[in-house]
Amino acid sequence: MIDTTTAIELVLLHGSINTKFLEVDLSDGLDYVLAKDVISEIDMPPFRQSAMDGYALHIGDDVFYTIVGEVKAGDNNNLTLNKGEAVRIFTGAPVPVTANTVVMQEKVIVDGSKITIEESLIVNTNIRPQGEQIKAGGIAMNKGTTIKGVHIGFLASLGVTKITVCEKPSIAILVTGNELVSPGAKLCYGEIYESNGAMLTAVLKELGYKNTLVLIIKDDYDKTKNVLKAAIKRHDIVIVTGGVSVGDYDYVGKAFNAIGVQEIFYKVKQKPGKPLFFGMKEGTSIFGLPGNPAAALSCFYIYVYPLLKKYEGAEHMKLPSIFLPLLSDYSVKGTQAQFLKARIEDAGIMILGGQSSAMIRAFGDANALVCLPKNSTEIKKGQNVKTILLPTK
Amino acid sequence: MIDTTTAIELVLLHGSINTKFLEVDLSDGLDYVLAKDVISEIDMPPFRQSAMDGYALHIGDDVFYTIVGEVKAGDNNNLTLNKGEAVRIFTGAPVPVTANTVVMQEKVIVDGSKITIEESLIVNTNIRPQGEQIKAGGIAMNKGTTIKGVHIGFLASLGVTKITVCEKPSIAILVTGNELVSPGAKLCYGEIYESNGAMLTAVLKELGYKNTLVLIIKDDYDKTKNVLKAAIKRHDIVIVTGGVSVGDYDYVGKAFNAIGVQEIFYKVKQKPGKPLFFGMKEGTSIFGLPGNPAAALSCFYIYVYPLLKKYEGAEHMKLPSIFLPLLSDYSVKGTQAQFLKARIEDAGIMILGGQSSAMIRAFGDANALVCLPKNSTEIKKGQNVKTILLPTK
Repeated sequence: MIDTTTAIELVLLHGSINTKFLEVDLSDGLDYVLAKDVISEIDMPPFRQSAMDGYALHIGDDVFYTIVGEVKAGDNNNLTLNKGEAVRIFTGAPVPVTANTVVMQEKVIVDGSKITIEESLIVNTNIRPQGEQIKAGGIAMNKGTTIKGVHIGFLASLGVTKITVCEKPSIAILVTGNELVSPGAKLCYGEIYESNGAMLTAVLKELGYKNTLVLIIKDDYDKTKNVLKAAIKRHDIVIVTGGVSVGDYDYVGKAFNAIGVQEIFYKVKQKPGKPLFFGMKEGTSIFGLPGNPAAALSCFYIYVYPLLKKYEGAEHMKLPSIFLPLLSDYSVKGTQAQFLKARIEDAGIMILGGQSSAMIRAFGDANALVCLPKNSTEIKKGQNVKTILLPTK
Repeated sequence: MIDTTTAIELVLLHGSINTKFLEVDLSDGLDYVLAKDVISEIDMPPFRQSAMDGYALHIGDDVFYTIVGEVKAGDNNNLTLNKGEAVRIFTGAPVPVTANTVVMQEKVIVDGSKITIEESLIVNTNIRPQGEQIKAGGIAMNKGTTIKGVHIGFLASLGVTKITVCEKPSIAILVTGNELVSPGAKLCYGEIYESNGAMLTAVLKELGYKNTLVLIIKDDYDKTKNVLKAAIKRHDIVIVTGGVSVGDYDYVGKAFNAIGVQEIFYKVKQKPGKPLFFGMKEGTSIFGLPGNPAAALSCFYIYVYPLLKKYEGAEHMKLPSIFLPLLSDYSVKGTQAQFLKARIEDAGIMILGGQSSAMIRAFGDANALVCLPKNSTEIKKGQNVKTILLPTK
């Protein structure tokens, strides 16, 4: 059995990278990963911009200035100022080339077409230099950036309308088990509602992965093998939940072998999610997640998330993490590395109740996973623990 | 001028709450806020469930047990076990009513139809009690929950197919300024590309608000007044960027007055975003955000985000925050409260460069906002600062 760090490294080592790119409208770019650097075609700002409402001056020898015009935002008159002359100017307006400072209106006494300046002048004050944010030809955004709303704002400000991004993976989610019934139907004794497919579809959708398909398979060796084989052929990533354990009716592992899935690892020293499988076949990455929903979701964030990001060539592949002080004592059960559902509070991190891997409820209140290294025992309040930040809105 | 805490309180006090509900398919429920408690119609688990692959026993007086059958997940045969009898059982399978413990297969020696138990038995071990997560009639999820992927998983496991949620607001984004040109067109001297509309649309979409409309208005008093009036009539929330300052061509404030918008506050003691306006008219909440994109986005997360969540009746209205140690010294410019773009690192929080309110670029690297109280001066490395976690994926 390997440890969690090795398992993550192996996922990132073997998982494939997509090389199919597509061009999308900037406004449709959310959640895609940039496949090429975006080069700015303009200086930003494109001209020397006034940062204030006030007066642009050509600094003279006196405190008195003559107003020779006005420039508001959007005006394209580039007035010529002689020494000792001023123009009324507004925030965002182009500062005339011949002006060398802008004075806030609060520091000026106006008397008809004359103004008196009430402060000592420094050249280039309140002027945003042309190209201060970026110069034409400069890299505005690096390849590998996962596009957020704010990125769309920045690229729009540079006049960008199209971006080249990596195609999203096509993902098959296979859920296995005779006990599974679709929500809406009536449960017989011994049956439960299928929820891993719905959960993983929704969690993937939250992250921007909408090209997903759920397949429910009964515990039948031939069916498992055939569905799995077809899914691997048709999809970039295949996620199986359940059926990977050693039970007599767990056919997934046997099917992996039979159809020639290359096992990268099986079983990780961790709780939850010990019977985690990762393999490859013909460029398709294949995960065998535990059938218990909370365990499946923990494994999703720790192992599948980085794989998705690697597939798309993203710069940041893992969820951000930080060391935070624990808000109450916690005694660890077991010796493996642990991933615990937790909630960030003002003063630190709180491990939630209901950690059983069969119970998904506590995960709904969680916005973080606390990671305890193997052989942790008694952890005291105030001790710093590694905390992975889950995606939040 | 009011302080930031008062401003947020006023937004949450005056902002309206939507009472229009709709029923959606669970699978379409992402990002909506539950308008009614969800009551579970079933016990979860619906029966006593085996947590292991092993043997279910009716505990007898001896270490030897006779195997009388097999129950796998999904089977609905409720076998009757007499004292000293066992059934082969698999994870997730219903434990026969007459069995009172489950032994892991690793602790059992099998000899034909007989097994020998190698550990001392405790009643109800490895059995998940019926209704352990929730009982029929219990509240599965509270009104006010913002639906995440994991919630969809939990509700699916209870057989839920429809949920009642609050209707999303209709949001108009008005951007003002003669200098604004749509991306794709050619810039003339003095012009810049319109980006606040694109940015706010994308940031709202990230949070699940897709019912948005951007309107670009030139600096013209009558047009500003008319467009604003129509937008307030047609939308639940109106966000204006730019034009709220004191400049002679800033018509938004004047238009607010003229059409009878009730001013809740104007100007907040903060940097960036001092000229922030919040008002109400006929149930529509109206924000006047700064025109500078970074300032507009900070104000969006601090003030507009809670308003949106209040509108939908969400339990958590503000973004989560935590006190984190600063990773390097920081000297504060100015005496107002500050919101600084920052990035969470393993060991603490790093304030980013490029904090100018006109510069949106640094915001792309940020996943947090550091909030410094007014009159902060020199902050030392290692000192804890309040950090708001921005939405991340």
